[in-house]
Amino acid sequence: MIYTVQQIADLLDAQLVGDPAVEIKAIASIEAAKQGDICFVNSPKYIQQLKETSASAVILKHDLVEISPVASIIVDNPRASYAKLLSVFYPACKYQPGIHASAIVATDATVDPSATIAAKAVIQSGAVIGENTVISEGCVIGKNSIIGRDTQLYANVTVYHDCVIGDECIIHSSTVIGADGFGFEHDKGEWLKIPQVGRAVIGNKVEIGACSVVDRGALNDTVVADGVKLDNHVQIAHNVVVGENTIMSRGVGIAGSTKIGKNCIFGGMTGVKDHIEIADNVIVTAMSLVSKSLTVAGSYSSNTPIDDTRTWRKNSARFRQLDELARRIRQLEKKIEDKS
Amino acid sequence: MIYTVQQIADLLDAQLVGDPAVEIKAIASIEAAKQGDICFVNSPKYIQQLKETSASAVILKHDLVEISPVASIIVDNPRASYAKLLSVFYPACKYQPGIHASAIVATDATVDPSATIAAKAVIQSGAVIGENTVISEGCVIGKNSIIGRDTQLYANVTVYHDCVIGDECIIHSSTVIGADGFGFEHDKGEWLKIPQVGRAVIGNKVEIGACSVVDRGALNDTVVADGVKLDNHVQIAHNVVVGENTIMSRGVGIAGSTKIGKNCIFGGMTGVKDHIEIADNVIVTAMSLVSKSLTVAGSYSSNTPIDDTRTWRKNSARFRQLDELARRIRQLEKKIEDKS
Amino acid sequence: MIYTVQQIADLLDAQLVGDPAVEIKAIASIEAAKQGDICFVNSPKYIQQLKETSASAVILKHDLVEISPVASIIVDNPRASYAKLLSVFYPACKYQPGIHASAIVATDATVDPSATIAAKAVIQSGAVIGENTVISEGCVIGKNSIIGRDTQLYANVTVYHDCVIGDECIIHSSTVIGADGFGFEHDKGEWLKIPQVGRAVIGNKVEIGACSVVDRGALNDTVVADGVKLDNHVQIAHNVVVGENTIMSRGVGIAGSTKIGKNCIFGGMTGVKDHIEIADNVIVTAMSLVSKSLTVAGSYSSNTPIDDTRTWRKNSARFRQLDELARRIRQLEKKIEDKS
Repeated sequence: MIYTVQQIADLLDAQLVGDPAVEIKAIASIEAAKQGDICFVNSPKYIQQLKETSASAVILKHDLVEISPVASIIVDNPRASYAKLLSVFYPACKYQPGIHASAIVATDATVDPSATIAAKAVIQSGAVIGENTVISEGCVIGKNSIIGRDTQLYANVTVYHDCVIGDECIIHSSTVIGADGFGFEHDKGEWLKIPQVGRAVIGNKVEIGACSVVDRGALNDTVVADGVKLDNHVQIAHNVVVGENTIMSRGVGIAGSTKIGKNCIFGGMTGVKDHIEIADNVIVTAMSLVSKSLTVAGSYSSNTPIDDTRTWRKNSARFRQLDELARRIRQLEKKIEDKS
Repeated sequence: MIYTVQQIADLLDAQLVGDPAVEIKAIASIEAAKQGDICFVNSPKYIQQLKETSASAVILKHDLVEISPVASIIVDNPRASYAKLLSVFYPACKYQPGIHASAIVATDATVDPSATIAAKAVIQSGAVIGENTVISEGCVIGKNSIIGRDTQLYANVTVYHDCVIGDECIIHSSTVIGADGFGFEHDKGEWLKIPQVGRAVIGNKVEIGACSVVDRGALNDTVVADGVKLDNHVQIAHNVVVGENTIMSRGVGIAGSTKIGKNCIFGGMTGVKDHIEIADNVIVTAMSLVSKSLTVAGSYSSNTPIDDTRTWRKNSARFRQLDELARRIRQLEKKIEDKS
Repeated sequence: MIYTVQQIADLLDAQLVGDPAVEIKAIASIEAAKQGDICFVNSPKYIQQLKETSASAVILKHDLVEISPVASIIVDNPRASYAKLLSVFYPACKYQPGIHASAIVATDATVDPSATIAAKAVIQSGAVIGENTVISEGCVIGKNSIIGRDTQLYANVTVYHDCVIGDECIIHSSTVIGADGFGFEHDKGEWLKIPQVGRAVIGNKVEIGACSVVDRGALNDTVVADGVKLDNHVQIAHNVVVGENTIMSRGVGIAGSTKIGKNCIFGGMTGVKDHIEIADNVIVTAMSLVSKSLTVAGSYSSNTPIDDTRTWRKNSARFRQLDELARRIRQLEKKIEDKS
């Protein structure tokens, strides 16, 4: 596939500065770009690399065009334009509509004729699969679960019964939607299971990484709103509500019944306690534990900084004396005050 | 399904105060309950909601019955009674006994006639599946593994060879039982694999969430005792022993050869070091790291509190000076002592 | 299976001290060894147990042979020799070469005749499976992915399209290789997906535990070098490079584009930030967060020590005052200086 930079500028609805006939064969990073490649520059910190680039063209913002030694495509958001261009150079895989001979589809399930049910997939009684949706190899869609249109489940995803997944979603392999929430009551020396009879309801344009879990609700539903993006190994516990466009990096765990606002960003491996509320536009940095409601937008953190183990061990031992140290400081202050 | 409150009181073996003919159509939370619903109240902190409830009946303890404006069912543990009532209103899914035509069952495997082997499941040579047990779609049961009676494996669970799972267990999707423990020996510049030849042995009434892993033992077995409840993304490493009725929230990791007592509670994302012992009745709060044996029952924690990132950064930087700060306090104390 | 200690010494290419005719029936740990067992002793801390052992033979280093009351096999690395002996007493499972009738193999996939494709496995178009490689039940190998020789994928592993896995690898169940990296760009109030068009490339002699994920690269590849060992629940994000023989315990998460050196050791549940570099021979202790590049070999840590929750709560509250406490110490020092 070869495009001229003019064709690419047209595709991106963008202004071109430079020779419109320059031919582009591939997309590359600024570090690796060579003759025939197009790359993008998102930030002035790449100015030096831009000046020395071997790329044949660059996607950039207006402010860097003067520095660019090659054909330049001017856009508002270079990384977004790069993303769009990627889908031109690497068109999404086309799936054959229809049900593979080795798939098992219940007679009373509804599969849109444009949908793909791949080898070894199982669609149980009453389930509904929407237009152009792809259910890959080894996926199991439980009874009465509804999957919208243009959604893709990669291989070996499990969706339990009575769940809902919206339109234009992507769910990666080994992920589980609608498993039982973790609810037990201590009764007569044993843990009595509380039946989990709510649903897991996933909105539109949601992406969920591999090996993640969204539990079903205990009585009411667990809800993941439109536009949410969850990375791998993420856990959404029962009755959690995740607001629109919130994004969670790898390994995040949200405990039961917590309400997460819109447009939040959770760094990798953060934990959020049960039964609390997180406001819209909250950012939590990696590996922090949110142990109380956060009612004000902003960035939050916990944990201690990385250090060499020997130094850390000394400081860490002092952490156990911190309250005592604070009291000793107060004592010293009093003594000094008394003297003067 | 409609029940009178008298019928419900009888089901729960409980005393009824109020009109026995009141009809109940559904179970709801105290917040959402409306006409025709029954809810439960577990704690005096819901007194106001109880007074204003629109529910037709409430399950509660003796001490709140006077406040209740509606038909009241008096029990010792309202949440336990609510759990029992849920299984009446939402009866567990009935599975068709027998082996699905698309399942692969080795000729020398033993499957009880009352068991269900669902579509695409694989039961390998020498495996034994007990009465009323359900092996769901895509599960793989390894050679000579034994699964007890009344156990349910949800879709896409993998059980390796020579493992044991007891009676009345529930194992959720994508979970793996009996994978190799992580054992290597550094030898001539490479990591030499130590064959993992022990088993994973799971007791009775154990529930294990989705995407969890119980590794097989190195030489001796990994053991998860009766009544243990593990949430999603939990890891039990090789040769760990988990005592009866211990409960672990999402993401907990127990490292190799550690012995965990009975009736312990591990908060989400806690880590426990290898080769240590945890006494019975230990509680570890979320995201703590247990780096040494805990020989006394009680609650334990590590980590630092959540704060706004700017404040946290300042305090966090000081953590790296903590030992020095402690020494400076000691210096100050000496100087003051010397002066007086 | 019975071996004489002489036969075992020969197998291990080791010197024997004691009666060569002693018969060994099983391998046991020093704690559990009884008549007919062989065990190994790796460290002088087991001297007392060695003196009292009921084992029939012991594998040990030269320095302990005088203390041993039984037949002794002298080696340089007793644990490595124990590992070798285990594979004699517990020979690896033999797999029937060939493609199971229920497997689905694309007509243009290449499967070596010595390879095993188990029940319900799916090998997609253009994929290549090498000599003696075992693709277990329910595995899905995506289009054009290449798996080397003598590699074993346990049940229900998913490999996405265009990925590479080398020779002599072991990959455990529910693990996912080549899922999309987590790349989005905020654009007009939504998260725009950045197509992930790189590959996941796994070297030779790599072992990856259960429920782990190696994401494919965004544009360039994600690379896991030869000899790397990853435990369960590990995440390698897009464009990460993991150097040779590095080992990561359970739950480790490496964020995008980070470069990890050779021979590193990551303790359980450690997190490593994106876009940083970790030198060779770095050790990171359990549950630490590496938030900056580590350019010098050595051991690193973060976090605070476990304590009883009450004490921890007091100290933890003081952590939030740490910067203020440090300033107060400085004030006190100034006052004392002024006075003298």
